[in-house]
Amino acid sequence: MKIKENERIDDLEHDNLKIIQNKNGFCFGIDSILISDFAKDIKNNSIGADLGTGTGIIGILLCAKTKLKKIYGIEIQKDVADMANRSIILNGLSEKFEILNINIRNIKEHMQRDNLDFIVTNPPYKKLETGKMNENEYKIISRHEYSANLEDFISSSRYLLKDKGTLYMVHRPERLVELMELMRKYKIEPKKIRFVYSTINKDACLVLIKAVKNAKPFLKIEKPLIIYKENGEYTDEIYKIYNKERKS
Amino acid sequence: MKIKENERIDDLEHDNLKIIQNKNGFCFGIDSILISDFAKDIKNNSIGADLGTGTGIIGILLCAKTKLKKIYGIEIQKDVADMANRSIILNGLSEKFEILNINIRNIKEHMQRDNLDFIVTNPPYKKLETGKMNENEYKIISRHEYSANLEDFISSSRYLLKDKGTLYMVHRPERLVELMELMRKYKIEPKKIRFVYSTINKDACLVLIKAVKNAKPFLKIEKPLIIYKENGEYTDEIYKIYNKERKS
Repeated sequence: MKIKENERIDDLEHDNLKIIQNKNGFCFGIDSILISDFAKDIKNNSIGADLGTGTGIIGILLCAKTKLKKIYGIEIQKDVADMANRSIILNGLSEKFEILNINIRNIKEHMQRDNLDFIVTNPPYKKLETGKMNENEYKIISRHEYSANLEDFISSSRYLLKDKGTLYMVHRPERLVELMELMRKYKIEPKKIRFVYSTINKDACLVLIKAVKNAKPFLKIEKPLIIYKENGEYTDEIYKIYNKERKS
Repeated sequence: MKIKENERIDDLEHDNLKIIQNKNGFCFGIDSILISDFAKDIKNNSIGADLGTGTGIIGILLCAKTKLKKIYGIEIQKDVADMANRSIILNGLSEKFEILNINIRNIKEHMQRDNLDFIVTNPPYKKLETGKMNENEYKIISRHEYSANLEDFISSSRYLLKDKGTLYMVHRPERLVELMELMRKYKIEPKKIRFVYSTINKDACLVLIKAVKNAKPFLKIEKPLIIYKENGEYTDEIYKIYNKERKS
């Protein structure tokens, strides 16, 4: 597998999986790892999509962690979609994981309604008017709501999901109220939330949400997910999520 | 101070405060203690109300923990309001804490609009149609949305609070989505949330919310509040909240 200028191949330390990333682009972080683990209860033989797939990290990990039948990776950026495609080939996942280089705002022209069992997504966290915008275009699209905003991600999920289909999302806690409001608006009911804290003494840095289309209200807030122990080491749970072997 | 049949006087182990409770009624729990502590950042000389004050526990603790000027305790149940009144006299707080025996649904007939600096409330947690209803009437009104529902509590807060006035609420995590949705509807923006877990390995059992009328969106999820250590003892933070002296 040849890589392009500024790209590198990283080892995911999980089932020999590898991923191609652009050194100047948006590289995957712990949020992708955590949402892949949070979503690993998707049913066998299910069909779903990763909205804003980026490097393809979430889809690649889900192919390894679950027995899903098929996942579509929706990615607006042509070069990024191409890079994800090469990672899929590199890992021999072409039959299960297919990249569609489209904007989720145009999803209706490309995909059927009420047809997917699950959606997983790590959308851009920042509103367009906030945060530093002096980044390159790749990073802006990946981090900011430049091409699609939170409402687009949630309304597309409503369009794509079957009745009782599941949406898994990772986002920033600061936007939780908007997330809840939009999920109610599009009748995708949050059923399980887990907050992620870098240490037990810090404010939450991420929120993991499992929501079900047309489900009845009743939310479970799961035990806190702590990343680092007080001595700076990963907690046992993070070791387990990253790579089961490291724990022992 | 004489107490009535089925009543008892409990020591709050805080500044010599005492509270009268009815053994067959709804006795205060850790939720009242935690919301009083969570709300202790209310400004000096501020004027506020406790909606559904019950035994008066939250108002009594806030009089001790803060330099508030005046707090109104709104309580629909006549006998409970009377009992809270006697606890206020017992603690010498009559000048600061006044009970109004009314239904919050009729708040507009009794109180001025846009006039309070803060609201604190521990509303009934359960919807009327859910949970066991084979309790006595006192417990039903205290636990279930029998006389007023969550929307009544939030719309009354909007009516009573000044611009940028603060609402502190304790509730169950299972109703978080509805809480967020209603607070947005009545333009009382959640700014700070803390989840309470009985131990670090359990789902959250309570949620503490600080919301500000007409504020801009930006939510902070604070570090988890854990009640018990793994050995079954209270955590240091809970000892500190209950009674500073116990910690040493």
